[in-house]
Amino acid sequence: MRQASETFETATPGRGLVEVTGPIVRWAAGQGIRTGLLTVFCRHTSASLIVQENADPDVRTDLERFFAELAPEAAGRYVHDAEGPDDMPAHIRAALTQTQLSIPVLDGRPALGTWQGIYLFEHRRRPHRRQLVLHLIGD
Amino acid sequence: MRQASETFETATPGRGLVEVTGPIVRWAAGQGIRTGLLTVFCRHTSASLIVQENADPDVRTDLERFFAELAPEAAGRYVHDAEGPDDMPAHIRAALTQTQLSIPVLDGRPALGTWQGIYLFEHRRRPHRRQLVLHLIGD
Amino acid sequence: MRQASETFETATPGRGLVEVTGPIVRWAAGQGIRTGLLTVFCRHTSASLIVQENADPDVRTDLERFFAELAPEAAGRYVHDAEGPDDMPAHIRAALTQTQLSIPVLDGRPALGTWQGIYLFEHRRRPHRRQLVLHLIGD
Repeated sequence: MRQASETFETATPGRGLVEVTGPIVRWAAGQGIRTGLLTVFCRHTSASLIVQENADPDVRTDLERFFAELAPEAAGRYVHDAEGPDDMPAHIRAALTQTQLSIPVLDGRPALGTWQGIYLFEHRRRPHRRQLVLHLIGD
Repeated sequence: MRQASETFETATPGRGLVEVTGPIVRWAAGQGIRTGLLTVFCRHTSASLIVQENADPDVRTDLERFFAELAPEAAGRYVHDAEGPDDMPAHIRAALTQTQLSIPVLDGRPALGTWQGIYLFEHRRRPHRRQLVLHLIGD
Repeated sequence: MRQASETFETATPGRGLVEVTGPIVRWAAGQGIRTGLLTVFCRHTSASLIVQENADPDVRTDLERFFAELAPEAAGRYVHDAEGPDDMPAHIRAALTQTQLSIPVLDGRPALGTWQGIYLFEHRRRPHRRQLVLHLIGD
């Protein structure tokens, strides 16, 4: 049984879904582990992770719109407003999605479904650098 | 330290919560691992996982209704509509719940609380066949 | 490769976020494991886990208010009402957040971001005793 870990940095262009499936799957597949468990952990509270359809980009547009309406920016709505009008909505959106995702590795690859992609969901308006910690255990 | 994995298929009758605790716990308990970590991964983006109360079936009715209202089917509301009016709401419902669940195994069994059941949450109207990947590591 | 596990009990004062980062990180750091995976599992369906900002307490106030509005107590709204008006909203709030959280351990400590805290989110009005199962694997 072995382990591998890596801190993966990615730049976001501001609010919306950034696909990170490729680099994560390539890193996992390159560790020489046939069977195991891959964990992706997001080190932020205003960005998060989701698994979503990787085919039609309209799905990402609709998801972004849904979350923007569910947790809107609105003056006076939140007590926490010192970091800008988009910060508290960002924390809410992160709470409603995932900070961490674990995926079984079978035959040397994460066992994602055909239509599943891993997305980093940026919740702040401006571009940010985000860190994901990857961990793999298996043999 | 050992690992076991299995792909578990289940049929859903359309929208709503299908309990999958029994077969998952039986599979895990049958691997001869006393202490470890069980992971359940859903290979879909229009079905998902949640842990919920396993006692009163009314809880499932109320949950289904809550999500149906939060992400309603509505003509013109979503850009992504080529796969039917229930597809984009299904992706939103999946984003708000879980694609993956990990449960510590103690004394040979997943350490679920007394009132906790594992549910596959089908978000599409029609019946589907769904795949869950199970992974267990421990000794 | 080794494992450690522990059942951690905590008292909540009723609805709201209770930080549990300190005891969880201390337990994990005390197991002598340099690299690994820490899992926290909540054994309840009316309390849950989230990772949130650990700096400004106003964030917790706004989160609590958001969830109270999203899944309000309201007579006649839910079929499941035998356990009190706050029980079904509690199940919904738990479904929207996390039952489980896994965090990579690097250099002997869980790799939380600078501003991340682990919170037990109590969804019932009254104080409760809650159980979290901790599991750590690594070497």
